[in-house]
Amino acid sequence: MTSPDPRLSLNQATVKHADLATALRVTADAGIEAIGLWREPVNEVGLDVAARMLTDSGLRFSTHCRGGFFTLPDGPARVAALDDNRRAIEETATLAAAGATGSTAVLVLVAGGLPEASRDLIGARERVRDAIGALEPDAKAAGVTLAIEPLHPMYASDRAVVSTLGQALDIAAEFEPDVVGAAVDTFHIWWDPQVLEQIGRAGREGRIATYQVCDWKTPLEADILLSRHYPGEGVIDFGSLTRAVMATGYDRDIEVELFHADIWADAPSSVVRRTAESFAAAVSPHLRGVPGSTRG
Amino acid sequence: MTSPDPRLSLNQATVKHADLATALRVTADAGIEAIGLWREPVNEVGLDVAARMLTDSGLRFSTHCRGGFFTLPDGPARVAALDDNRRAIEETATLAAAGATGSTAVLVLVAGGLPEASRDLIGARERVRDAIGALEPDAKAAGVTLAIEPLHPMYASDRAVVSTLGQALDIAAEFEPDVVGAAVDTFHIWWDPQVLEQIGRAGREGRIATYQVCDWKTPLEADILLSRHYPGEGVIDFGSLTRAVMATGYDRDIEVELFHADIWADAPSSVVRRTAESFAAAVSPHLRGVPGSTRG
Repeated sequence: MTSPDPRLSLNQATVKHADLATALRVTADAGIEAIGLWREPVNEVGLDVAARMLTDSGLRFSTHCRGGFFTLPDGPARVAALDDNRRAIEETATLAAAGATGSTAVLVLVAGGLPEASRDLIGARERVRDAIGALEPDAKAAGVTLAIEPLHPMYASDRAVVSTLGQALDIAAEFEPDVVGAAVDTFHIWWDPQVLEQIGRAGREGRIATYQVCDWKTPLEADILLSRHYPGEGVIDFGSLTRAVMATGYDRDIEVELFHADIWADAPSSVVRRTAESFAAAVSPHLRGVPGSTRG
Repeated sequence: MTSPDPRLSLNQATVKHADLATALRVTADAGIEAIGLWREPVNEVGLDVAARMLTDSGLRFSTHCRGGFFTLPDGPARVAALDDNRRAIEETATLAAAGATGSTAVLVLVAGGLPEASRDLIGARERVRDAIGALEPDAKAAGVTLAIEPLHPMYASDRAVVSTLGQALDIAAEFEPDVVGAAVDTFHIWWDPQVLEQIGRAGREGRIATYQVCDWKTPLEADILLSRHYPGEGVIDFGSLTRAVMATGYDRDIEVELFHADIWADAPSSVVRRTAESFAAAVSPHLRGVPGSTRG
């Protein structure tokens, strides 16, 4: 088999049941050059140990997943959530410094859903904006980019009140682009009639902190959180979306992040191989031939 | 119990397993003044018989459900779909004429999903626009308004490539407002960061052909098509949405359309009573005190 695409990064959630050592090993063994990590397996071994393991792996670090979940009203739970996000910012900075050259210090933020018994979607969205404002000085001091991730609208009530790329960019707009950007994940935004226009806008505004690819297929799984498929197995047109991202000058790694019970039940080494193959077939052809520029 | 809100209309799908006679009877018996019908039960008895039954019921007719499903490429299947939509337009005109004073001739259009094995979402959306252009003269001649219904983005691949109210209005824009409008259904659009702005725009452009209320609750049912709840049982803020619709001068009936296995298993007379009660509690309070005007 040929080498994986040099821009492919494996998001650790794709091999969810692997511990950090296994995730790093299977990724490097497959010839993949980069990885996006999750907080839980990192904290399982401790940040310092995780950073050393990452350095030893020789992999680039692409994102840290994840912060956010700050739609709660004022009170101890909100204070705790913000403090936890500050720890996530520190983790992101440490891991980005430990990764190979070309690593990026990006913390992905999932906004959180409506608080229990609340119907105030507009208020919840305002609290996301406020929380990012509260975290912005910490992120800036640490050299970390907060990547607001719009999630598919089917998650708007219980997981993320940020539902479109346009909305994420509106929130990001009052902050510096190096400090607050957006995560562009095909699964979440492929359906949006404004998606190509908003990707272009995100590029012009220097906000594409990470590009992630994952496919959509129906019927959805009964647990709609676990319905993410290998690129090429569903209906998403990776051509138009990837070319739009590349046209902005995006030059970072591209993650594959899959949540699916069948994928998680598979052997990690098999999953990374299949990830590399699906990426090569569905995404790589659209990375070439686009005039590149460095991210503004 | 008090009388149902005079603006409430029962969409027949809410009592899916009732035949037309039963649906008309339980609706009128409950004191509800209007009904939205579905093509299948109407055609089961035949259009002429259905029209007489509707007249005899004394109910207003609010919408006919449904046309659409025209994302197919050129060929016999597309021709058949357009012909079927022309029959639906005739049915709508006949039923609106048979309903009590205040009936409205509105045919709800569900666009259809991606054709088998296609990833061309942009092309599918163009074919929706083309199909509406093809049907527009028929609708105009029949005095029928085609109501483009944006469906929740979770249905974008397999049911409706029209996913936001803004997109529906963009498609409608090239046609006369009395001929092509939009269906505003809370379940499908409540999550949209632009929803209040787009409702206002729909009003200014004279495009709100029907307003439908239905609630969203998670976890979704395993069959995500059957996850529609009585108003007030979920997280949708009917206050802000209903006030926004009323502020446009919307003066038509308001439908409750529920798809849920538990509701369908319940006795139709019980379902209509509960529909009236939930509407009175969750929606009616927001219908008052807004300066009214006739729909432009």
